[in-house]
Order: sequence, then structure tokens, then C-alpha cells
Amino acid sequence: MDLNRVFRYEIPTAIEFGNGAVSTVADHVKALMGTKVLLVSDPGVQKAGVTQKLIDVLDQAEIPFRIFNEIEPEPDIEGVMVGRDLAVQEGCDCVVGLGGGSALDTAKAIGVMLGNDGHIRDYVGINIIPKKGAPVIAIPTTAGTGSELTIWSVMSDKKANAKLSVGSPFNCPNLALCDPELTVTLPPHLTATTGMDALTHALESFVNKATQPISEGMSMQSMKLISQSLRTAVSQGENLTARYDMLLASLLAAMAFNSTRLGLSHALAIPLGAHFKIPHGTVNAILLPEVMEYNLVGNIPKFIEIAKLFDEPVEGLSPRKAAEKSVFAVRQLKEDVGIEETLSDYGVTEKDLGFIVEEAMMSGNVPVNPRKPTLEDLKQICRNVM
Amino acid sequence: MDLNRVFRYEIPTAIEFGNGAVSTVADHVKALMGTKVLLVSDPGVQKAGVTQKLIDVLDQAEIPFRIFNEIEPEPDIEGVMVGRDLAVQEGCDCVVGLGGGSALDTAKAIGVMLGNDGHIRDYVGINIIPKKGAPVIAIPTTAGTGSELTIWSVMSDKKANAKLSVGSPFNCPNLALCDPELTVTLPPHLTATTGMDALTHALESFVNKATQPISEGMSMQSMKLISQSLRTAVSQGENLTARYDMLLASLLAAMAFNSTRLGLSHALAIPLGAHFKIPHGTVNAILLPEVMEYNLVGNIPKFIEIAKLFDEPVEGLSPRKAAEKSVFAVRQLKEDVGIEETLSDYGVTEKDLGFIVEEAMMSGNVPVNPRKPTLEDLKQICRNVM
Ligand SMILES: [Fe+2]
Ligand SMILES: [Fe+2]
Repeated sequence: MDLNRVFRYEIPTAIEFGNGAVSTVADHVKALMGTKVLLVSDPGVQKAGVTQKLIDVLDQAEIPFRIFNEIEPEPDIEGVMVGRDLAVQEGCDCVVGLGGGSALDTAKAIGVMLGNDGHIRDYVGINIIPKKGAPVIAIPTTAGTGSELTIWSVMSDKKANAKLSVGSPFNCPNLALCDPELTVTLPPHLTATTGMDALTHALESFVNKATQPISEGMSMQSMKLISQSLRTAVSQGENLTARYDMLLASLLAAMAFNSTRLGLSHALAIPLGAHFKIPHGTVNAILLPEVMEYNLVGNIPKFIEIAKLFDEPVEGLSPRKAAEKSVFAVRQLKEDVGIEETLSDYGVTEKDLGFIVEEAMMSGNVPVNPRKPTLEDLKQICRNVM
Repeated sequence: MDLNRVFRYEIPTAIEFGNGAVSTVADHVKALMGTKVLLVSDPGVQKAGVTQKLIDVLDQAEIPFRIFNEIEPEPDIEGVMVGRDLAVQEGCDCVVGLGGGSALDTAKAIGVMLGNDGHIRDYVGINIIPKKGAPVIAIPTTAGTGSELTIWSVMSDKKANAKLSVGSPFNCPNLALCDPELTVTLPPHLTATTGMDALTHALESFVNKATQPISEGMSMQSMKLISQSLRTAVSQGENLTARYDMLLASLLAAMAFNSTRLGLSHALAIPLGAHFKIPHGTVNAILLPEVMEYNLVGNIPKFIEIAKLFDEPVEGLSPRKAAEKSVFAVRQLKEDVGIEETLSDYGVTEKDLGFIVEEAMMSGNVPVNPRKPTLEDLKQICRNVM
């Protein structure tokens, strides 16, 4: 990289990680001076019995709480204000988010709104939030979004059919409480798609123009873990070592991309998610190999590194051929974990591509991508997976 | 590692890193709401013209400041209170530390005392400081201690002939401002010894019992960079790429050991530094290969990893022999960068070893060391380098 570019790296979130970590949540609430918890979760997590684990810990410590679990898969931004009002009404001064990206993104934004005026819409964009809100503890139950420590909350605006992103260090949780045991009940397909989302984070950060050596190290460790453990986590959900590796990989990917942004997969994932309701992990899994194939010429050495991390034999190959091995490896992984969806399965047609790529081009992930795309390039990437 | 051990990882310090980064210091002072700066530096840094660079930036931004540069190489703890009083008297509300570990350790402790009552002695130990003090920006001019982002300040108590350590997240700077250009004037021997200190941090953290996957990744990147660039930084001080790598390696090592503690080199370095005034980097450089040789049987696979990071050929060797290659590599590096000192050069004799190892044994770095030492083991390590 350019040694004269000054890069910034900041992770305001403390991490506690290990099997059984969730049993320490009450201590952390107390350490953060919380007296009553707003527990932001979703019905799926509750049904899997995960919410109950947390409730038991809070009950035993005699910490009062109020559950807010009206979180849909791609949560509407208005839910944040509903949650905030509930917290105020109930006197909650600490937010615990438990779930996948949707629950955590919402929990973080509610925390922000407990210390800042106006509407969460006022803070859409990057670095707009004026100050830290209420303390937030984020407990992930999927290994994918990395929302437990990123600056980002991505919310749907259902009225406008759009995705809105809020990014700020003040949107980072105080604590990421990562307990691999909570992820063992995640069904295989969701394990696969969220795992591919984590891989997309690590990989897009690694090859993009904004990366730097600290993030690169995180990305490499993350990709290595995913290449070794995602198949096992999908095939043997109860395998705690694989679950541990995947939750760690997702966290490391977030530590990497938090200060670098991402690339074309995420640029396209936003409009495709907003207009066609393709789950975030799925759309990234669909796009990633195509985006890699397109980006490869923009940074051959990095794609060779990726091939090596996936243990592809590259000895004796030309750099170009060695780099292609990375695409092969990721495509193989996607296939092995059973992701067969195409964009057409979600109703995307040729005539939609125009507005999709127009919207994608406005993403902050495009300027950092290792290859500068035309609108036609983006369309072709989509056509390849329709 | 034990998947049921819950590990904590926390880096409250934001990092800005790159050649020329020091020119942004005024913006950071303002962002931290600083109106007048206490500039904590040392005469050596001032003589090298580095302090002037900073003064020019502050002058241009019309930020008033007061210089406090009575920092000796191994600073006395009373200096912290003198600096604190000066800051109060001059109305300084922001501390900028510029220098090696001594200046940064002092600057951090002054920041703490600008927001906490009593004497800095009251906070000796780990996690004793009640709250964050004044904002601190740490600008390293050596690539070694990692003080720019650790929780630690190590100070001398000259009256008691002891070293006192204060460790707390509240002792972490708000910002580590890392500018490799500031390190090019560092003389070869100091480059060598501080670089070996950084290596000792990365390595002792990597093999110890408290490490975890996030720190391991940091340590590995750090050791790789040191193995590639320390020789060049010592032989060609003006080589900016080597200086960049070394400052980064020192930072990464600190990101690793900040949450894991260290090992026997550092346990012994404290009393040897306190009683015989052996500079911290020098004593670690002297001890590290001996400590490695002793520790090796406690974690063979990790020492093999180290050998590989140093590009030692280990194919076809037994694990035991492969692990030994790590000791060979580090000894070779120490020799190549011209560190020839022994403990005897500083006046250490056989009859001193008794109280040295007694003091070393009380260090928090001993329980995490990969091999449990006896007092006699520690004596023998010292004898080997007398
Ligand atoms: Fe994502
Ligand atoms: Fe050290």
C-alpha cells in the first residue's frame, strides 16, 4: 500500500468470547451501570430457546428487563423508534441485542436513540451521530454480519423500498459477547448463507483499495477459518469447534472491514435486498464468485493470497492462473454448503437491472473496489447469476 | 486453546498510521476538545528535531502548549506528579506524549492524574484507576514498547529501587498517532534493542497460556514483519519501508499482548532493569533466546510456527528439532543487529541472582508462561547470559 496514506483503525467495542460467555451478561450489565434492560431479540431466536438462556441469567441476577422482539428479518427503520419509546416508557437504561444482524442492528440503533434527539433517519450516513447513547451489549446468534462490533446498522425503509445505513463509532456496542454455543441451533442453510456473508466481508475488505495491514491480518485469519470450518458447521451443526471458528471468523471479518468498507458484492446486495427481499447472506453468496472473477485483474497478488489461504495448489502456475484458483475455491465452497439460488429465483429480470445497478453505483463500497466498474459491468455480473 | 475459556479483547485506543501522520495532530487535539496541550517529550527527541515538527504543527493551528521534557530514560514516578501539577497550573486539558516508552508512559499517567484524585502510586496494579482522565495522544518515536496503545505505564521508583506498573483501560491513550518518518533518526543500537523488545512482546504473548486467536493473529503478523525488516531498519536507518514495517510490528505486538500479558523475559526484565539500570529493550534482547530455549518444551507447536514465520527450513525435521529452529533464528537476528551485551556488562553477579529471581517470580507474567519455572530455572536462564 501507499506508505503515505494515513489509515485509521478503531474498534471501540470490547470483546468477550468463549463457550458459555452468555452466562456473564448480568455482570456486564452491572459494570455498564445498567439497572433495567431492553432485551431486543427476534421470534426465531426465542423459538430456538436462546432467549430463555439469557432470561434465566438476568432473572438469577435479579436484573429487571423488558423484551422487545417484534424484529422482522429485514427490520423496518420505524421499529427503532418503537423500541426506543418502549425503553423510555419502561425505564430501561441498557440495551441487550440478541440475534442475527437484524436484531443487533436494531438494538444498536435503539441505544443511539436513547442518548440522541430526533429520529434515527436523521443519522443515516456516516459519522452523523453526535454522541454515545445508552450502553449496548450485542450477543450474536449467527456467524455472519459481524454487527456485534461494526459501526453499521442497516435498516429497511419499507415505505420507500430502500435500505438505510447508519455508520458511526457511537453506533458500536460497548461489548460484543460472543458465545459459540448459542449458534449451534442455527439451521444449515442459514449457517451457510451467513457464513458466506462473513467470507464476503473478509474478502472484499482484503482486496479493496482502502485496506491496510491491520485489517489485512484480520481478513486472512478470517478467510482461513472459514475455508476450514464452514463446511463442517453446515454439515454438523452441533460441532462446537466449527461453530467456534465460524463465530470467530465472522468477528475477525468485522474487525477488518469496519475501517475499510467492502466491494461490489455489498454494493449490489443493498438494492437487490431492498427491492427483491433476497436475504443479505444469500445475495452475497450468489454474487461473490462473480465479483471475484471480475475484480481479479485489479489485484492479482491478493487473489493469489486468497487461493493459498484456501489451500489451493498454485505452485508452477502463472500469477493469472494462480489468482483464478481463488474463484474456483470460493465457488466450490458455495456449492459444498448447498447454496444454489440465483437472482431469478427472487424475481430479478433483465429489465430490473437498470435501476439495480444505478442504485449500486451510489454505494460507498464502489470507490474502494479494486476495479472501477461501468454500469454495464455491474449488469453483466448480475446476468451471470440469473 | 480451551474453547470454554472466555477471553477478553479490548483496544480502546484509535490508531492513525502513516508517513506524515504527525501533521494531523492539531485536528486530533481539537476533535478531543483540547484547548491547551501539555507536550510530554524527552531531551533526546527534542535534540533530534522531532519535537520541533510537532511544535510547528501546533503553532500553525494556533493551539497553545507547554513543553514538559524532564523525562529521563527510565522515568521516576514522581515526574508524573510534577507533570500533572504543571498541566493544572498552565491550564492544559490535553496531553500529547512524544517519544519512546518513557515519555509515553509518563504522558499517559499524567492524563490519568488529570482526572483522578490522589497520587499515581495509588493506582499501581491492574484495573485500579476509577475513571478516564484528560485525553491523551501518544506519538511513538521508537518501534518497541507499544506504549502508544497499551494499558501499561511502567515507572521507576528511584527511592525504592523498584519498577511500578499501572495497568488499566483508562491508561490507554485516546489516539495512537504513528508516523514512521519520526523514527528514521533513531540510532542503530536503539533501533535494534527496541525492535527486539517488540519481538519479545509478540513472541511471549504468542506462546503464553493466556493468548487467544485474536492476539495470535497480531503476534504472527508482528513477528513476520520483524523477521523481514529489523535488520534493514538497523543497517539502513533511512529506509522508510523498514521503518514503516517496524513501527507497525511494534503496534501489532502491543495489540497482541495488551490482553494476554507476557512471559519470563519480561518477568526478569523488571528487576534487572530496576536494580542494574539495563535498558528495557537490551535486557529483553539478552534474555529472549535463553527464555525460548527454556520454554520450548512447554509448547512445541507454537515454536515451530515461530520458526516458520522466520522462514527457517523445518521440512523433514522432528517437531522438537523444528521448534529449536525458532531459537536459532532469534539468536541469529539478535547477533545480526549487533546486540552483544551480557548481564555481567551491567554488573550482575552470581550473588545477585537470588533476589532478582525472587522478584521476577512475583510478576504477573510468570503464571501465564508456557512452562512453570522454579527459582533455580530462572537463575540458570540468567547464568546463561552473564
Ligand atoms: Fe454483509
Ligand atoms: Fe517490553
